[in-house]
Amino acid sequence: MYTLWIANKNYSSWSLRPWILLKALDIPFNEKLSYFEDGKSSREKFQAFSPTGLVPCLIDGEVTVWDSLAIVEYIAEDHAQVWPSDKTARAWARSAAAEMHSGFATLRQLCTMNCSARTELNEITSELQCDIERIDTLWAEGLTRFGDEWLAGDKFTAVDAFYAPVACRAQTYGLKLSAISQRWVNRMLEHPAMMEWVESALKEPKIAH
Amino acid sequence: MYTLWIANKNYSSWSLRPWILLKALDIPFNEKLSYFEDGKSSREKFQAFSPTGLVPCLIDGEVTVWDSLAIVEYIAEDHAQVWPSDKTARAWARSAAAEMHSGFATLRQLCTMNCSARTELNEITSELQCDIERIDTLWAEGLTRFGDEWLAGDKFTAVDAFYAPVACRAQTYGLKLSAISQRWVNRMLEHPAMMEWVESALKEPKIAH
Repeated sequence: MYTLWIANKNYSSWSLRPWILLKALDIPFNEKLSYFEDGKSSREKFQAFSPTGLVPCLIDGEVTVWDSLAIVEYIAEDHAQVWPSDKTARAWARSAAAEMHSGFATLRQLCTMNCSARTELNEITSELQCDIERIDTLWAEGLTRFGDEWLAGDKFTAVDAFYAPVACRAQTYGLKLSAISQRWVNRMLEHPAMMEWVESALKEPKIAH
Repeated sequence: MYTLWIANKNYSSWSLRPWILLKALDIPFNEKLSYFEDGKSSREKFQAFSPTGLVPCLIDGEVTVWDSLAIVEYIAEDHAQVWPSDKTARAWARSAAAEMHSGFATLRQLCTMNCSARTELNEITSELQCDIERIDTLWAEGLTRFGDEWLAGDKFTAVDAFYAPVACRAQTYGLKLSAISQRWVNRMLEHPAMMEWVESALKEPKIAH
């Protein structure tokens, strides 16, 4: 069985991605949670299980997979439902997930995931607005082209998992989105796997900011 | 046939990744090159073919794949040789490629790819040293575990393509690497596909810095 190392559910957006994918697809795994060190780097601590000292990290017997997107592709080799079955939808989903993987630096920096917080941003900078608008456009495109339930069709797939933390951020920071994108945010926040994640996040000790 | 949109061969490290993979594996494609705008953003220009206004972008009939790693996975669906055939080597290769995709920000910022230049860095900051050491460790691990020809075995695969621009950077900036990593750099720089890329890069108009 897979072992998935993650960090604080309240804060670790990268941990949420493979976790919610496995949960949503009913793929069994052992969860191992290691808290971030308060006020200092956690890399040394996490290097006990992850070669980069980053989370998430998946262990499967002798195999270690130390990046969120690589974890998704590793799981996809044995679970066809990870990506959409339609080739065009799958190419779109992979592009969108990879865009999240390497992009949206401003959103990630100014709107860090904090499941338990509700706050208002003092200012929406033009760079942040640019990230929000691109995400809104992307989601609306997927929901329009492939069916309006999940981002790349009528089933929850890895591209939904990759944008799941943005649904949390939209709630925490009250980000303004189009109606079609907001419906996806609501659907994601009401997903049983997300509700389970947030319930645990609320119970965790919080880090002072 | 695939159409691959790229930018200047001298500067566009992200373009090099799928380009050299296709060339090294003898997979036919149409190359389309659009130069960066000198001194201003090229996003608007590139949005004619790429939804993010970024390169590379692969077009295959009705399908658009707009991210380097998504392009690799898209090609891998029809070409088994893209990733190593061994499951453990493949998981390692995917993790290493994904680590490059989202990481090494300092190296990418301070040592931008510039195939035609030879220069010395004024200073190796601790962050840069950290990136160089991690890459050296990673390469040495792959070369030791899976065979010392290419990073994840005896064949050129997508993980070699993902680190190909770092071989150029090692040459341009004279980065200090372990002997085993330096041998891989030399092998990469002598690969016919890389030599073809650099030959074209040298002929391009240069951007003033």
